[in-house]
Amino acid sequence: MRKIGVREIEDMAVGAAVLGTGGGGDPYVGKLMAIQAVKEYGEVTLLDPEEVPDEALIVPSSMMGAPTVSVEKIPNGEEPFRSFNALEKLLGQKIYATMSIEAGGVNSMIPIALAAKKGIPLVDADTMGRAFPELQMTTFNLNGIKGTPLSLCDEKGNTMSLHTINNKWTEKIARAVTVVMGGSAILADYAVTGAELKKAGVLGTATKCELIGKAIREAAVSKKNPVEAVLEVTGGVKLFHGKITDVARKTDGAFVHGRAALEGLGEDKGFYAEVCFQNENIVAKKDDAILATVPDLIILLDKETALPVTTESIKYGARVIMIGIPCDNQWRTPKGIETVGPRYFGYDIDYIPVEMRVQEAANK
Amino acid sequence: MRKIGVREIEDMAVGAAVLGTGGGGDPYVGKLMAIQAVKEYGEVTLLDPEEVPDEALIVPSSMMGAPTVSVEKIPNGEEPFRSFNALEKLLGQKIYATMSIEAGGVNSMIPIALAAKKGIPLVDADTMGRAFPELQMTTFNLNGIKGTPLSLCDEKGNTMSLHTINNKWTEKIARAVTVVMGGSAILADYAVTGAELKKAGVLGTATKCELIGKAIREAAVSKKNPVEAVLEVTGGVKLFHGKITDVARKTDGAFVHGRAALEGLGEDKGFYAEVCFQNENIVAKKDDAILATVPDLIILLDKETALPVTTESIKYGARVIMIGIPCDNQWRTPKGIETVGPRYFGYDIDYIPVEMRVQEAANK
Repeated sequence: MRKIGVREIEDMAVGAAVLGTGGGGDPYVGKLMAIQAVKEYGEVTLLDPEEVPDEALIVPSSMMGAPTVSVEKIPNGEEPFRSFNALEKLLGQKIYATMSIEAGGVNSMIPIALAAKKGIPLVDADTMGRAFPELQMTTFNLNGIKGTPLSLCDEKGNTMSLHTINNKWTEKIARAVTVVMGGSAILADYAVTGAELKKAGVLGTATKCELIGKAIREAAVSKKNPVEAVLEVTGGVKLFHGKITDVARKTDGAFVHGRAALEGLGEDKGFYAEVCFQNENIVAKKDDAILATVPDLIILLDKETALPVTTESIKYGARVIMIGIPCDNQWRTPKGIETVGPRYFGYDIDYIPVEMRVQEAANK
Repeated sequence: MRKIGVREIEDMAVGAAVLGTGGGGDPYVGKLMAIQAVKEYGEVTLLDPEEVPDEALIVPSSMMGAPTVSVEKIPNGEEPFRSFNALEKLLGQKIYATMSIEAGGVNSMIPIALAAKKGIPLVDADTMGRAFPELQMTTFNLNGIKGTPLSLCDEKGNTMSLHTINNKWTEKIARAVTVVMGGSAILADYAVTGAELKKAGVLGTATKCELIGKAIREAAVSKKNPVEAVLEVTGGVKLFHGKITDVARKTDGAFVHGRAALEGLGEDKGFYAEVCFQNENIVAKKDDAILATVPDLIILLDKETALPVTTESIKYGARVIMIGIPCDNQWRTPKGIETVGPRYFGYDIDYIPVEMRVQEAANK
């Protein structure tokens, strides 16, 4: 158990945007929301999952929608509170603590803001260990936990509740409502007991985000290579060094789909790379070879600062280092790969762990 | 207070499809549902609105969706029960009786089936006096009554609840969910007190439907002209006599849009007419002149039997009589015309009561 305030939030926001793999929302917007909340209501207690009583009720709070939209349609701070309270009423039981559904610039910050306002602890865990675009893409789902009952709010004052037969239906219905509400909405869903959380969650994600952010911040001070610092703290591998030569991005109201093209620099001069995304980065290629695929994390970092480049902020000419980070082991099971592997996203590619792909390429 | 059984249902289903003005669902499907329910659970008590206590809670039950879909995606009979029970739980109060949201082949029948199964009375009223395609198009809305809390179910077992800021948002969100659920879903919404119902409802609609159906049935026996019988009992006027020469129908998942072309027969030989619809018939023209528009009722009746021709059953070559029936007076107010007049549906036409248009044409 420890307190998190402005400094921790600053680091966490940066680290969460790294693990957000291009998606998860704008870290600047998220950070401002969380900082404002702790300034107004006081610092937030971060609980180690082991400190959560087995029978306690834990409910993640998150934003749903295309990041493209959320950059302009900023939550007003009331929606997480409203959706959370609506679900608490629906469950008829007091919620003990909140947590992140995923690591991401906004979705790691909303639970902090909510915890501050509501005066409850935040649990050091999430349900992905990264960001994914769809609602059934959680380790809770892999463990048979249902996302409903769910409450969803918009900033206008509309509230929807949902009970479904499975998490794919929850995704379909909540997504349609989010689109109608204007492209983003705030959720309270996947209520779990402390016991379920300890078994089915990805534990320690908030601290991991903080460590990544801290490594980047300290590298800037100590003149250490910041990308190397990120690789050290995440166990990641360098995939490509290049500059952005093209970006295609299309938002259908539900998701932002697109691809970024890179031209090699330095050791990768003469090579070309490509990253395809659906909110989050899905597949990376170097010429005809696959560099990495979901569920492993594919991340673009600014070459100089190692600050993460989100799907929304990819710009022509930017110098970036593409890195890969092995995903949580729960995603490397057959059910995990079926749920979030490359084939789910429409790519006819086998999932091979990123570290094996890198090893293979080095042996050629 | 009286009992309604198979004979009353047979008549009501036909009359409701007449007032459904092309929409409101397939009368055959609706009739079977209601008849099966009264055979299983017993006859239903039909209450005159005056018999409803002022403080009693009344909740309409209805289907939402494009009629095109509902013909093939037949409710299994459980959904009205489930959505009704979900709303009852949400309201935390026992529902005294149900009623129709609109007159229509399916939407006049679902409340009968539900009343039988649930063992509650049906109130002799609806909220349109006809059928309209959107959720905010009710006399309850004209009187400032909100459609939410609302519960919506599909046949798979998914349930959504909604609280919105106004009835247009209810329409938008519930429509999007209905489309995702496969194009039709079952609603419980617009909960009212007995006092509100008496002030804001269209009273006597169930009995009116029955009288229309009875007139058509008896005309067949007595060899009386059945179309004349419908005009007598509804106060309607004959608009056109012709045969269908073309039908264009397009379902976007939410609504069926289209138009039917007619070539004049008999007294209308040499003239052409057209009916445009969005689930229900919206505008009727004879050559360049407007015959009638919403909110007045535009209905195609089979020339021989006077049975109503729904949007889904319009067929090339069919001989029909197009009739117009004056709408309920609540629709003829400025707010009524703004809500369901021709301009709302995208037609740049002033609303002129159908009986005035007929008079005007006769004077020419």
